[in-house]
Amino acid sequence: MNRLWSTTNIDVPVADKSLEVYLSQRPDEGITSETFGTRYVKVATTPDLGSDNVLVRVLYVSADPAMRGWLGTRRSYVKPVAIGAVMRAMGLGIIARCATRSLVGRLVMGPFGWCEYTVVPTSKLQFVRIPRGLSPTTVLGVLGTTGLTAYFGLLHVGKLQKNEVVVVSAAAGATGSVVAQIAKIYGCFVVGIAGGPDKCAYLEKKLGIVAVDYKSEDGVNAGLKQALGDKSIDVYFDNVGGNILEAALKRLSIGARIVVCGGISSYNSKDLPPGPRNYLALISSRASMTGFLLYDFEEKFPQAVSQLGKWIVAGKIVSEEDETVGLQNAPEALQRLFQGKNTGKVIIRVSEEAEGICKNASARL
Amino acid sequence: MNRLWSTTNIDVPVADKSLEVYLSQRPDEGITSETFGTRYVKVATTPDLGSDNVLVRVLYVSADPAMRGWLGTRRSYVKPVAIGAVMRAMGLGIIARCATRSLVGRLVMGPFGWCEYTVVPTSKLQFVRIPRGLSPTTVLGVLGTTGLTAYFGLLHVGKLQKNEVVVVSAAAGATGSVVAQIAKIYGCFVVGIAGGPDKCAYLEKKLGIVAVDYKSEDGVNAGLKQALGDKSIDVYFDNVGGNILEAALKRLSIGARIVVCGGISSYNSKDLPPGPRNYLALISSRASMTGFLLYDFEEKFPQAVSQLGKWIVAGKIVSEEDETVGLQNAPEALQRLFQGKNTGKVIIRVSEEAEGICKNASARL
Repeated sequence: MNRLWSTTNIDVPVADKSLEVYLSQRPDEGITSETFGTRYVKVATTPDLGSDNVLVRVLYVSADPAMRGWLGTRRSYVKPVAIGAVMRAMGLGIIARCATRSLVGRLVMGPFGWCEYTVVPTSKLQFVRIPRGLSPTTVLGVLGTTGLTAYFGLLHVGKLQKNEVVVVSAAAGATGSVVAQIAKIYGCFVVGIAGGPDKCAYLEKKLGIVAVDYKSEDGVNAGLKQALGDKSIDVYFDNVGGNILEAALKRLSIGARIVVCGGISSYNSKDLPPGPRNYLALISSRASMTGFLLYDFEEKFPQAVSQLGKWIVAGKIVSEEDETVGLQNAPEALQRLFQGKNTGKVIIRVSEEAEGICKNASARL
Repeated sequence: MNRLWSTTNIDVPVADKSLEVYLSQRPDEGITSETFGTRYVKVATTPDLGSDNVLVRVLYVSADPAMRGWLGTRRSYVKPVAIGAVMRAMGLGIIARCATRSLVGRLVMGPFGWCEYTVVPTSKLQFVRIPRGLSPTTVLGVLGTTGLTAYFGLLHVGKLQKNEVVVVSAAAGATGSVVAQIAKIYGCFVVGIAGGPDKCAYLEKKLGIVAVDYKSEDGVNAGLKQALGDKSIDVYFDNVGGNILEAALKRLSIGARIVVCGGISSYNSKDLPPGPRNYLALISSRASMTGFLLYDFEEKFPQAVSQLGKWIVAGKIVSEEDETVGLQNAPEALQRLFQGKNTGKVIIRVSEEAEGICKNASARL
């Protein structure tokens, strides 16, 4: 049986110890330096793995708004992360050790968590094929849950039609920026709401949409009014909630659809903040607010990934990434996300070397 | 031309003066004794009418939750009632004077307003045919906007399926009680929310549904939990908003539909009260909240009225009416509605004699 564990001709360097970031304490409100802890654990050797598992060296992990929900005690569509457990996160990695020689060096993705190495059952391996010309980390962003959330939320839940009026909040964020760009592809008039002049400049110059700065003196209400002029909103894609949702509710067209994707403005609150006071606007506009979970569309992922990939290659979707280097900095990257400091998808490059390893592996495909 | 104005052999008594209830002052919060005023105006004679108008003697008028919105200054789907104008209301009346002899004595309905007599253009006459065995006032209730709102809201907006779990708020009210009964016809498990033991007894004994008393010590949350047991809500028909909507949002099944029909709990508030704090439950339940206006379904009214009529005749829908006698008491009847004192449709019989006139006219059809 020993030959099954023979080394391959592709070399993936493996350390003895794996750094892990684990949940140390559930946050009351915002994430603090007490929320997460770090520790080292021994890395599994090839014999430890048996024939049913592989060792993945994790190269990139993600930080997402939804993580805030997993840090609480409420069971939602997924269980909370347990105290002491490695923080749950999507990751892109490379098979470093495996009984099956040919698999070593293959790029894989999965919910690896915030760790340098992880053991994954062979049956659950999700191999990554990066479309030619795209960065490998795209699979965590536009071609991953982020882009798919934008795609299904806007097209299937929001039932977007060509040339409609679309407003999206957190428009400079990972999902929001893809929503804005898909809406542009559909010929829509697109207004993006974001915080601060830098993000608004990004929306206007890079994405070519009308930007509203909710942090500006005039506030989101006046900003949205001015941006829309005499138009009203056909689809509002909401990542934020709060007073931004209220501002959008004021300007719905007849038959408008509000896609409820998230409510980051309330995620850090200890008590739930007031909901949209003017939700009865749904009556006079004959409008709807609909929530969704991405995994309900799982069967349609392949065609969506294919379409999103074509749009990126054609330059119609710009994949913006906000990269932090060093796994130990993942908690800080997540904090920055809740402070609204990121533009695009927040990605943590696990180590300095990860980029080179990833590029080499990608080039071999 | 004089023969056009000849009297008919049907006698509809007409007074010289018509009592009107007009909007005197917009209410800040609740309706008060200052909100409405009364006055007498001269009744139009037959020559005044010309050949294009008829004089309607109004027999019954309605009082509805939506009226509260018309008393404010905000333009919604209809204009506010102007200060000094007769209060807008649906009514059932009889043609008392008309150039066309054969029309006198015919029952008609329309937005006559809170008045004893009104002049209506012939082109806008809406003749009433009461299905055999039904009370004429049914056309203001189950066969009018009330029942139609329940019908289209539950079946078209809520997309009710047989044997689902349905919760309805203001279940002892005009629309709510019809919603509950249609849901029963569809084989659903129906929970009705209402205030006080009398209304709950009505729901359980007369409508045969499970009642939750939101005014009870345990509150609506505990009550709804107990009523549902291990069930979750497929369709929530909301007439109320506030903490009752929040309680329902906690117990949605996957793919649940919330029909936003009204929000009477907030109608009297000067400032809008908080919206549903837990609206993000729409995400984990992949649920929707949808508003609607009855008149978008106008083309389908005839078939809906026919179906509702059959259900009443078959005893499957009980048409409950809460009658007040005397037009001058209309403001008080409206106040009682907002105090939750009514069971079923609030109707004002304009005068003592109206009942007899209506019955005679109905018998002649």
